[in-house]
Amino acid sequence: MALIVQKYGGTSVGSPERIKAVADRVIRWVNRGNDVVVVVSAMSGETNRMVSLINDIDPEGSAREKDMILSTGEQVTIGLLSMALQSKGQDARSYTGGQVKILTDAVHTKARIRRIDDTPIRNDLNKGRVVVVAGFQGMDEYGDITTLGRGGSDTTAVALAVALKADECQIYTDVDGVYTTDPRMVADARHIPVLGLEEMLEMASQGSKVLQIRAVEFAYKYDMPIRVLSSFDDDEKPKSTLVTHEDGVMEDVLVRGIAFNRDEAQLTIAGVPDQPGIAYQILGPVADANIEVDMILQNVGRDGLTDFTFTVHRNDLEAASKLLEGVASKLEASQCKWDDKIAKVAIVGAGMRSHAGVASKMFKVLADEGINIRLVSTSEIKVAVVVDEKYVELAVRVLHDAFGLSETMA
Amino acid sequence: MALIVQKYGGTSVGSPERIKAVADRVIRWVNRGNDVVVVVSAMSGETNRMVSLINDIDPEGSAREKDMILSTGEQVTIGLLSMALQSKGQDARSYTGGQVKILTDAVHTKARIRRIDDTPIRNDLNKGRVVVVAGFQGMDEYGDITTLGRGGSDTTAVALAVALKADECQIYTDVDGVYTTDPRMVADARHIPVLGLEEMLEMASQGSKVLQIRAVEFAYKYDMPIRVLSSFDDDEKPKSTLVTHEDGVMEDVLVRGIAFNRDEAQLTIAGVPDQPGIAYQILGPVADANIEVDMILQNVGRDGLTDFTFTVHRNDLEAASKLLEGVASKLEASQCKWDDKIAKVAIVGAGMRSHAGVASKMFKVLADEGINIRLVSTSEIKVAVVVDEKYVELAVRVLHDAFGLSETMA
Repeated sequence: MALIVQKYGGTSVGSPERIKAVADRVIRWVNRGNDVVVVVSAMSGETNRMVSLINDIDPEGSAREKDMILSTGEQVTIGLLSMALQSKGQDARSYTGGQVKILTDAVHTKARIRRIDDTPIRNDLNKGRVVVVAGFQGMDEYGDITTLGRGGSDTTAVALAVALKADECQIYTDVDGVYTTDPRMVADARHIPVLGLEEMLEMASQGSKVLQIRAVEFAYKYDMPIRVLSSFDDDEKPKSTLVTHEDGVMEDVLVRGIAFNRDEAQLTIAGVPDQPGIAYQILGPVADANIEVDMILQNVGRDGLTDFTFTVHRNDLEAASKLLEGVASKLEASQCKWDDKIAKVAIVGAGMRSHAGVASKMFKVLADEGINIRLVSTSEIKVAVVVDEKYVELAVRVLHDAFGLSETMA
Repeated sequence: MALIVQKYGGTSVGSPERIKAVADRVIRWVNRGNDVVVVVSAMSGETNRMVSLINDIDPEGSAREKDMILSTGEQVTIGLLSMALQSKGQDARSYTGGQVKILTDAVHTKARIRRIDDTPIRNDLNKGRVVVVAGFQGMDEYGDITTLGRGGSDTTAVALAVALKADECQIYTDVDGVYTTDPRMVADARHIPVLGLEEMLEMASQGSKVLQIRAVEFAYKYDMPIRVLSSFDDDEKPKSTLVTHEDGVMEDVLVRGIAFNRDEAQLTIAGVPDQPGIAYQILGPVADANIEVDMILQNVGRDGLTDFTFTVHRNDLEAASKLLEGVASKLEASQCKWDDKIAKVAIVGAGMRSHAGVASKMFKVLADEGINIRLVSTSEIKVAVVVDEKYVELAVRVLHDAFGLSETMA
């Protein structure tokens, strides 16, 4: 008998009919002899509806009150799913994040989980119940409701799986797993049945939307296997991707997949003094404004001056560019510019650790197509480049072919 | 400095604009030097939306899960109102029923309040905050969310007022107080500025929709003054009805108002043995089915047989009539019939305690109009009669005139 934590996203529970379908699926897992804990998101559209109410009152309003409001979406879903399970004869019980004691810090709208009390869940499981938990939310030490921010429900599921020492954390979404790249962009992208957690971490951080990076980080830290499945797939033996510790996963695969995103913008400040501390002078104000910086590049100095380039999320470009103009005038920079017509393309694979030449092959493939590389960032298991946005489809396709990822080459 | 508990219903908080108007009103009360605790309902339409989701899943579903879902409506409103107050410069803090420790019994969907911990609210008031509490909900000793059922938000407000020893509990609604009868039925119905709690209790139980009977019962039990005001009234000195302990209210008013309702149905079982225990044999099964019985009439027996008549809510007629048929066949009754084309009309007034002849005057006025009385029920401060539904408007108008309640006679 296995203990499984399942998570169903907003589309999977988007209507009463979909919720009943989820109940059927959960019951099939129970009937196969498993203990099941289910984490759900708000019904699709609900969170947007509440955000719009909030914006009508005060978009800059108190984060505590926003959490009070936003946490209700998941609370509705857990009640409905528990009722659907019960009406099909499966005993079930719903819990809000606070009730099941998902204790978080007090950073409203982006709280981090500190501790989970698994006692109430275990008691229910021992009584043969399915436990249905609201994703995305918790409670701080003052008894206030908190939300976990982006990707919160995936994170709740992984954290519960870790706390319960579950055998597997299943993330149900609208795709049946991870592919070598986005199948909407490359028609012969190949399904990946097993993937290393570290690789998934790089895939997620480089733009793959299948799993939220925070949840993968959590799973990676606690070595919790994640299985990605489609909630629209009715097969008895559904297609899935198991994301797990990399031992025995690796084999000879050099490059596992191609990730990409169009979420970033690039900023450059040119002709600043090439002296110690210059990076801090430039990035300090950006970090102070809670703007996350992804890639950073400092050119080799010339004539005592250097150029400095970094990327931020496009949503943060306006704020970051204003800060940079302030820094530029203070440092008497020769130029200060930005561009959001960029895309990031990354090849990811634990196999490249032991293989030289992966990066150079990538650069050659792109050069052969006349695609200029603006920035490069590498780790042991990925190489990411920034290119003009208009080249992103071309870059992904040629790299997918060049590294032998296409279906026909399987 | 007074401590005031205010309650705003679903229409009063039905849109972001209405919520902002409520915030302005609350702030005016604070600026006049009052401590203010606000209880709110779900935005109008929200509860119906959730009930429809529930019915799509399972109308007969678990009451615990229904409460989990239904309680979210108020939770959204408290967050929005707190944000509206804050954005206008008034410090505020929202609490769910569970957070503010409104402890109830575990009877989901119609829980009763057991205890309220006033400490967190007092702490916030001492810091100059407005405290915004979700109406209609609480938490039981197991930490499960409960709802109070019909009229729950009014009851929350009165219970909080009692727990905090507030000076006044203000119920904001869409009318500016209690009238001698429904002004939609009698155009010259008169506004009542002050009314006894006991009279209000009778008015509410006889069909006046202005205040929920449960809340009035609570206020009556703990002697908490209630003020009914309109949230659509922008006057500095708004019209209102103060419902309070009757000392000093009474004066010489004989009849305070005319209440009526069309919510009931009448059932009769005829020709049953006139023997001890017969009432119990008839009403026992009805009570066991949790059907509330309002009026009960047993005729004087003749030839060892008697007739027995009672009224129930129209929603319960189908269930009650089935039960009655079972009883009739068991008791070999000569007849068993029911009718939902009835209405109840009542005259209410603490003054009639010391005046004989109020009931007989009522009967004469109705007889003069040819209105047949089917059932009578009296208390010290009310006389209620059941008449054919088609006569209800006529009965209310002639009684309103006959007892001198019309505007022109004020």
